[in-house]
Amino acid sequence: MSVTAPAGFVAAGVACGLKSSGNKDLALVQNLGPLTAAATVFTSNRCKANPVLWSQQVMADGRVDAVVLNSGGANCYTGPQGFQVTHATAELVATGLGISAGDVLVCSTGLIGQQLDLDKITAGVLAATEQLGRSDADSTGTAASSPAAGLAAAHAIMTTDSVAKTVHVSGTGYSIGGMAKGAGMLAPGLATMLVVLTTDAHLDSTALDAALREATRVTFDRLDSDGCMSTNDTVTLLASGASGTTPDLSEFTAALTDACRSLALQLQADAEGASHDISITVNNAVTENQAVDIARAVSRSNLFKAAIFGNDPNWGRVLAAVGTTDAEFDPYDIDVSFNGVRVCRAGQPDQSRDLVDLTPRAVDILIDVKVGTATATIWTNDLTHDYVHENSAYAS
Amino acid sequence: MSVTAPAGFVAAGVACGLKSSGNKDLALVQNLGPLTAAATVFTSNRCKANPVLWSQQVMADGRVDAVVLNSGGANCYTGPQGFQVTHATAELVATGLGISAGDVLVCSTGLIGQQLDLDKITAGVLAATEQLGRSDADSTGTAASSPAAGLAAAHAIMTTDSVAKTVHVSGTGYSIGGMAKGAGMLAPGLATMLVVLTTDAHLDSTALDAALREATRVTFDRLDSDGCMSTNDTVTLLASGASGTTPDLSEFTAALTDACRSLALQLQADAEGASHDISITVNNAVTENQAVDIARAVSRSNLFKAAIFGNDPNWGRVLAAVGTTDAEFDPYDIDVSFNGVRVCRAGQPDQSRDLVDLTPRAVDILIDVKVGTATATIWTNDLTHDYVHENSAYAS
Repeated sequence: MSVTAPAGFVAAGVACGLKSSGNKDLALVQNLGPLTAAATVFTSNRCKANPVLWSQQVMADGRVDAVVLNSGGANCYTGPQGFQVTHATAELVATGLGISAGDVLVCSTGLIGQQLDLDKITAGVLAATEQLGRSDADSTGTAASSPAAGLAAAHAIMTTDSVAKTVHVSGTGYSIGGMAKGAGMLAPGLATMLVVLTTDAHLDSTALDAALREATRVTFDRLDSDGCMSTNDTVTLLASGASGTTPDLSEFTAALTDACRSLALQLQADAEGASHDISITVNNAVTENQAVDIARAVSRSNLFKAAIFGNDPNWGRVLAAVGTTDAEFDPYDIDVSFNGVRVCRAGQPDQSRDLVDLTPRAVDILIDVKVGTATATIWTNDLTHDYVHENSAYAS
Repeated sequence: MSVTAPAGFVAAGVACGLKSSGNKDLALVQNLGPLTAAATVFTSNRCKANPVLWSQQVMADGRVDAVVLNSGGANCYTGPQGFQVTHATAELVATGLGISAGDVLVCSTGLIGQQLDLDKITAGVLAATEQLGRSDADSTGTAASSPAAGLAAAHAIMTTDSVAKTVHVSGTGYSIGGMAKGAGMLAPGLATMLVVLTTDAHLDSTALDAALREATRVTFDRLDSDGCMSTNDTVTLLASGASGTTPDLSEFTAALTDACRSLALQLQADAEGASHDISITVNNAVTENQAVDIARAVSRSNLFKAAIFGNDPNWGRVLAAVGTTDAEFDPYDIDVSFNGVRVCRAGQPDQSRDLVDLTPRAVDILIDVKVGTATATIWTNDLTHDYVHENSAYAS
């Protein structure tokens, strides 16, 4: 199930030649209403791609009728010509669907610094809008509102992903669907994390924005595969209102958080070259932000990440990373556990490291700083030969 | 030439069994005066090793008569027992040389979380102090003030270093010698950067401190091999005054900076697993600190570093890292050059990436942000298979 799971949405995924493999590379999602409310979260990178610059303008009024996404090129650092390609893409979608270009979000993913081929985009948008325009079925006999159409869209945004990432969460009288691409931020060429979430709940853009910011804060923002921040990351939430249900905002936020967490963990599990999925939990920090700061510092230590690749419970590298933060703690009263074995207690060796089994893919690091009650978890991956290989051989 | 090059210093390097290889693992440097002024810069990591905690106390009065350094163990996160080992080491040196333990700096390097064997340390200190106590020659016929003795000390602090790092810079009527260990901060097990600098210039500890802070600010602090900060880093400067020359402080600072730069570049060149030495220079920033921030962000991008390993002039990864900083610039008016070829101009593709030759070990990245006149360079290394291998296989 994917973006077409909630009522009021149609989707398509087509191949237009942006990917040399011939695989699907252009996705289109349309909100048929009756509502066309939306919220987005964009990358905080100051070097933003052209589709992000365009989509920020689209979001000014909180209305989005359609999202068009392409793989095979990030359209970032491509100057005014690149922006014109983004603009033209939105216009083509608008013409094909009979909507306004100012209500069309554009997302792109792939290599930075290369122009997108507008002829290919044009062909792709025509094919996709044609599929959406048919009330019953696309050329393969699949209705644009079907699960298969949603899955086709999820496939079309894949770059180096090995599997399509989708989610479907049911609420009380409504549901939330979604698709994502990206191997965490591990992806080569700064391929981006793109996420489209849909819901048939009846909520305005202000409510959607609040729910989306809270959900991403504790899910996608806690995924830190390799510390590299993309120029194109975009998470979009579209609401059709087609269920007629206006859920309690906190219940909706919880369901949306579940959907985002599922997609985030799917991204972690598919992170390029990774051999371990690492959860770093900091307990008993003074504030949640301080817990995040500590966990993130550990998640960005290459020495720690390489040790996990080597199945080495090297707690010294954990504490050395903790020591680089400004968070409140006593450096000599910290406990560290690897997969349930407390190898460091109060800053000294505790249980034998030989008791730690790091051969499973899942690794849980627990850091107890003993100064408060706040907790947070960051999800990351190990640093492997395959990571280096895949990220050194991409563009050359 | 090394720490014994300036007048007034003797040194020794011995093997006491801390290293299983049987190689030298304990170094001792003594300042014979007439001055015993000193300055130090310690790691800013809040998780500091026991020898750092000890040495910070020693530095309270700015007087240091001797520095004892061991490889084979960091003595970090070893609790009160570990601190007692550090204290005992200083006492042993003091007894052997007839000085006060409160004037003996201790530096340790190696794996975190393991106790040092005090019996081995004791044997090593006895052997080293005996060598220094002999006025003419050690057991191999080498005077403790000779270049060979300085080189022996430089060898004794090596861990995974492939070569000893030493320097000798001549000033007007004085000179500066030095030794260093550490493969940048790339070293496994958080092996540390330890540096001892000596001079026969006649300067008090206040002047030495000012000179050392300025010199390290633009040398060791600009070396960012893998973004990991050690728990044991210590840079020490000892002045004997034996030349009778009190140099102009700015001239001395310049000479000291030359010495530190030489050692820093030796560390970079010996960084573990590295196949490229990368200089990242930011030009025309508003302030030097902002230039450093931008260059450091690029130096910590694993995607950028993996691209260099693959000889890939991936300027998109440079700009994506630049965009994560708070420095002042226009994201769409930045130029980027790789080894003299401007591949990005004003945020758009410029010269062909095919013109860039990244096969030499030295790589120069130039980032022109066009908003001011300040400049700074960060030295780093690429992210390689060997880095992952050496740092995943160390402790297990």
